[in-house]
Amino acid sequence: MLKRLSKYIKKINIKKKTTIKDIANVLNISAAAVSKALNDDSRISKKTKKAVKQVAKNLNYQPNHLASALRKGKSNLVGVIVPRTNSNFFSSVIQNIEQVLNKEGYNIIITQSNESYKKECDNIDTLLFTQVDGIIASMANETTNLEYYEKVKAKGIPLILFDRGENDLNVDYIGINDYDSSHVIVEHLVNQGRKRIAHIGGYKRTRIFNNRIRGYIDALKKHNLPLDNELLIESSLTTEDGKEKMAQLLKLKNRPDAVYVASDYAALGALQVLNEHQIKIPEDIALVGFGDEPFTAMVTPTISSINQHSAEIGKQAALTFLSYTKKKTIEQTLNKIILDAELIVRESSNIIN
Amino acid sequence: MLKRLSKYIKKINIKKKTTIKDIANVLNISAAAVSKALNDDSRISKKTKKAVKQVAKNLNYQPNHLASALRKGKSNLVGVIVPRTNSNFFSSVIQNIEQVLNKEGYNIIITQSNESYKKECDNIDTLLFTQVDGIIASMANETTNLEYYEKVKAKGIPLILFDRGENDLNVDYIGINDYDSSHVIVEHLVNQGRKRIAHIGGYKRTRIFNNRIRGYIDALKKHNLPLDNELLIESSLTTEDGKEKMAQLLKLKNRPDAVYVASDYAALGALQVLNEHQIKIPEDIALVGFGDEPFTAMVTPTISSINQHSAEIGKQAALTFLSYTKKKTIEQTLNKIILDAELIVRESSNIIN
Repeated sequence: MLKRLSKYIKKINIKKKTTIKDIANVLNISAAAVSKALNDDSRISKKTKKAVKQVAKNLNYQPNHLASALRKGKSNLVGVIVPRTNSNFFSSVIQNIEQVLNKEGYNIIITQSNESYKKECDNIDTLLFTQVDGIIASMANETTNLEYYEKVKAKGIPLILFDRGENDLNVDYIGINDYDSSHVIVEHLVNQGRKRIAHIGGYKRTRIFNNRIRGYIDALKKHNLPLDNELLIESSLTTEDGKEKMAQLLKLKNRPDAVYVASDYAALGALQVLNEHQIKIPEDIALVGFGDEPFTAMVTPTISSINQHSAEIGKQAALTFLSYTKKKTIEQTLNKIILDAELIVRESSNIIN
Repeated sequence: MLKRLSKYIKKINIKKKTTIKDIANVLNISAAAVSKALNDDSRISKKTKKAVKQVAKNLNYQPNHLASALRKGKSNLVGVIVPRTNSNFFSSVIQNIEQVLNKEGYNIIITQSNESYKKECDNIDTLLFTQVDGIIASMANETTNLEYYEKVKAKGIPLILFDRGENDLNVDYIGINDYDSSHVIVEHLVNQGRKRIAHIGGYKRTRIFNNRIRGYIDALKKHNLPLDNELLIESSLTTEDGKEKMAQLLKLKNRPDAVYVASDYAALGALQVLNEHQIKIPEDIALVGFGDEPFTAMVTPTISSINQHSAEIGKQAALTFLSYTKKKTIEQTLNKIILDAELIVRESSNIIN
């Protein structure tokens, strides 16, 4: 082959976008006159308009919609911030936000914090920079300083939090009842005859994980089970850390007979360690995860988990944003929409039936 | 509890962002004067500057960085377009693009096409609107019309495609060798003693899937195996469609003894159908997927798959973009970076060892 497709050279002016100023320079008129000509202003002669349009075409000038959005203060864009996109929960929430907003003429742009506070601040700056009409966000694990979110509020841009929110921010919030979820799980395990229920939980400083821990402790009390501090472990809830924490539980003299893990990803790690040690699930140790990630139904044994209602959360978040677009100056009703927990029982905790 | 946290009312002016015009109105001076005052222009009196800054503070005015980016023609934002974020391949590519670009002071914004051409066009418009300095994209299944991508090129914004690209666009491209991947898979299956190898492939119109199909056909020829048209099926490659196409193959009088599926998601559907029919994998039918999604190592049996080098693709895409930021008007070298295929052999096709 004489001509290789894999590499060729082309002259291209990469950095420079044509601006109104460029057109003005070519014609030796003012930028204001070019702008008026492009907008068919009656104060500009037909001859000048024709010349401006010809030069604009030659230079491949693209009218800047953003500039007009800046004037009107409306971009029809909604920014979404998630800790990460490679989680079925977050990508399903995004999908549903998008479906509802697209129908109403809004597009979304997505940013991820990778659980980093600094990255989340950058994301907020980026979204404000791009003139979004609203922000729908779920907070990073690391975030405790709310200054950046206060900045969004100060700008008068609707801010809606989901899943990981903060009461102190006083904004709309959509999530599931984490406290009750723990009750549902503990009750299920008690009904399956379990007496030593461990909890591999998230960081206490993250509100939702704190609620799951509080729910776990209160549910044990309700069922007259003692709280054993050895059985309550804080974790980053990655698959890797789930492995580590499960191995830690297996080293106990008095092992648990059930483990409730606050995330499916960590539950998967726990499952792998249990399988490696050839521990019978659920007979020897029952396992329950959180999030209903699709892989919980694929692994052996399948993992019981809490359905987080991602579709409903996405829809409600989008609808909440849309409710603000209908009004001008409004009495903002800050709703907390809390969805009920739903436990999907699978093989990993189905002992009696 | 007298005070409910779940619902409260607050007065907030949602829609209106404070503009220079608002400040001008309060002080009854021109917007241009306000702008000059905020920029400490020497033509404005100290008294006016003080008044302007006081009003700006009172109205919570935030200087618009975007306006300055418009002037400078640089936003430090890079737009990413993917078919969907809930795929480990795409989210890993994104992660790696982000890591490289963050270090150089660029932030990324992500949009997804959901495999829709119309949505992809909207995404391009959105990214151009937000003044991104570059676009890194993987095309939707549906996309055949390249008009919108030509628009990006016409604007002189660096455009880099990965995984799903189009030679006709003449832009930088990073991907794996799909044609060779099929050869590697077929050779592996032949070495395992297989003689009737089926291929559940993607749509021929998508270049990467077409390359996989061509590789499959040529590899059969190379190993003196006849091409049986019953064994070559086009699919949308969702898990659902993988189920359907596998069921179709099982209905054949002369069943295949191996199935190569062009996506792990569809391979998972195929696996489920094989398990339902209690067909022994790999003894009766061997299975190979594509993409090395994490679940391939979690299911029973684990699924052999092609590693798509997502990390390397993300890094190379980011580095290619960065190479354009270092130059002003440049001779753009359009590189096609093609990474070698790597087959991860797991239980689903490991017959002999």
